[in-house]
Amino acid sequence: MRQAGRYMAEYRELRARVSFLDLCKRPELATEVTVTAAERLGVDAAILFADILLILEPMGFGLEFTKGEGPVIHNPIRTTADVDGIRPFEDPAPLAFVYQAVRSIRSALRSDLPLIGFAGAPFTLACYAIEGGSSRHYEKAKAFMYHDPGAWDALMRRFVDATATYLNAQAAAGAQALQIFDSWVGSLSPTDYRRFVQPHMARLFAQLDPTVPTIHFGTDTGSLLELQCEAGGTVIGLDWRVDLRSARQRLGEGRAVQGNLDPVVLLSNQAEIESQAQRILDEAGGRPGHIFNLGHGILPTTPVENVLSLVDFVHNASLRRTH
Amino acid sequence: MRQAGRYMAEYRELRARVSFLDLCKRPELATEVTVTAAERLGVDAAILFADILLILEPMGFGLEFTKGEGPVIHNPIRTTADVDGIRPFEDPAPLAFVYQAVRSIRSALRSDLPLIGFAGAPFTLACYAIEGGSSRHYEKAKAFMYHDPGAWDALMRRFVDATATYLNAQAAAGAQALQIFDSWVGSLSPTDYRRFVQPHMARLFAQLDPTVPTIHFGTDTGSLLELQCEAGGTVIGLDWRVDLRSARQRLGEGRAVQGNLDPVVLLSNQAEIESQAQRILDEAGGRPGHIFNLGHGILPTTPVENVLSLVDFVHNASLRRTH
Repeated sequence: MRQAGRYMAEYRELRARVSFLDLCKRPELATEVTVTAAERLGVDAAILFADILLILEPMGFGLEFTKGEGPVIHNPIRTTADVDGIRPFEDPAPLAFVYQAVRSIRSALRSDLPLIGFAGAPFTLACYAIEGGSSRHYEKAKAFMYHDPGAWDALMRRFVDATATYLNAQAAAGAQALQIFDSWVGSLSPTDYRRFVQPHMARLFAQLDPTVPTIHFGTDTGSLLELQCEAGGTVIGLDWRVDLRSARQRLGEGRAVQGNLDPVVLLSNQAEIESQAQRILDEAGGRPGHIFNLGHGILPTTPVENVLSLVDFVHNASLRRTH
Repeated sequence: MRQAGRYMAEYRELRARVSFLDLCKRPELATEVTVTAAERLGVDAAILFADILLILEPMGFGLEFTKGEGPVIHNPIRTTADVDGIRPFEDPAPLAFVYQAVRSIRSALRSDLPLIGFAGAPFTLACYAIEGGSSRHYEKAKAFMYHDPGAWDALMRRFVDATATYLNAQAAAGAQALQIFDSWVGSLSPTDYRRFVQPHMARLFAQLDPTVPTIHFGTDTGSLLELQCEAGGTVIGLDWRVDLRSARQRLGEGRAVQGNLDPVVLLSNQAEIESQAQRILDEAGGRPGHIFNLGHGILPTTPVENVLSLVDFVHNASLRRTH
């Protein structure tokens, strides 16, 4: 999950001077916020500062991050012809600033701290591209999918190819793991996931550098875990709506999982945070293959000291278990 | 699910002259929209036109439905003292207009068409009361719950008692089934549901007129179904994120279910609607105890003819099965 963000004073200070998109596009600034966050929090891996929507610009979408409203796509997809008009992303060069950030972060980070690169998953990118921004029900995206499965398929294929190119370029630049954010996929029924998303995700994972571990992330995916697992991913992300123990049973011993603390718990107090973190560690059962993490992004109102004490608590509890 | 709404021309015409709250508060108008919708759609039960937030006004909350923004509560709960200041709803009289609507709808409806009354569940009411309106992450409500479990408990008790009084008054006025909308409960982890919600829901169901069947509704509840079932409800609502067949297996033969079509499917075409409806009927397996329904509210952009053809299709398919 994004580590640098509005909950950190260092980040807010930088953002007072630079727009969000500029921050993503200037490798020296992306490096600064990535490294500062990872070092300050004391986490076991750093995640690149970037945005899943960056890839939309070189594909021909007009992208803007507006204050308060979040991302806006000025020319959303509405017709089959719009799909044909999307520019392929065969040459990864237009996002060179991202790979440059990866290289620069990698060389600035402590050598034993792995760096995670990431991208949005095709379904989540398609939701943004069709809705034109965030959405509550994804009704335009789903209606498009139901109305014209052929155009949907073509759209997903373009996003799959683009995302594979983008992620492999991040890996080539030094990213040691790749996280694929399918943040909105939990809005689909299992049947629709199987029909409209799963084959595309399988094709995406098949195109990625096989030497780099992948994290297959989603939220609201309680009924989709087995299907996501079939599609691919070294690690499957779990939000807080699922019981970690039963999720691991469903996915089998061979599959690692990541999660599953509710980010809102970080707005509570020390005792509550520790008790919920301990429950997750207990449910993980001390077996390898569980990466402690939040179930979704950190909220802007989160007190940074609560994050620090959570990281400490999880480290100490894990140490107690291994010694 | 609400049957009358912005997707119907008759409703939009009335709403051009009357505010949403006025429509709820004038029994003759609530009767008109309820009966018109049920008769026009040809469904097998009518549901009262009202709003889950109506109960907040007599409990001391300033409620307004703003254009575009949805419900706003002008004096949301922020402190323990605010909880103490909530007026109990021991005398159901302040919502007499609802019971009057129930009586009037009952006498206007075809005698073989049952009328469903409803209320918001305590958790969902508490979310609105604390957030002050709709919310994406329910972070104020959850933070309140984590920070002060005692005040949370007191708040939930007040809502349980008020809701029981309100629902029993609807039943006494002639409602033949009662639906409890826990629309936002799926934002909780199973552990938090068990701790902060389940005992209150159990107490609510225990206080309801035992001769009236109840529908326990939620969305995003794939991991909560067994826990909701333990709390109570003749029928358990399922959204589209769960597989109907496996949900029925989990809940056992004795428990009826309702659902589980994605409301967005109604924005597609005849073929897609029929194929998704048929799949749900197949998954229900022709056994009694499944009420066909949407998994959540109908969207304002839904073409009314798609709803009509869905109702016809389900009726014909069910008839083919029984004969």
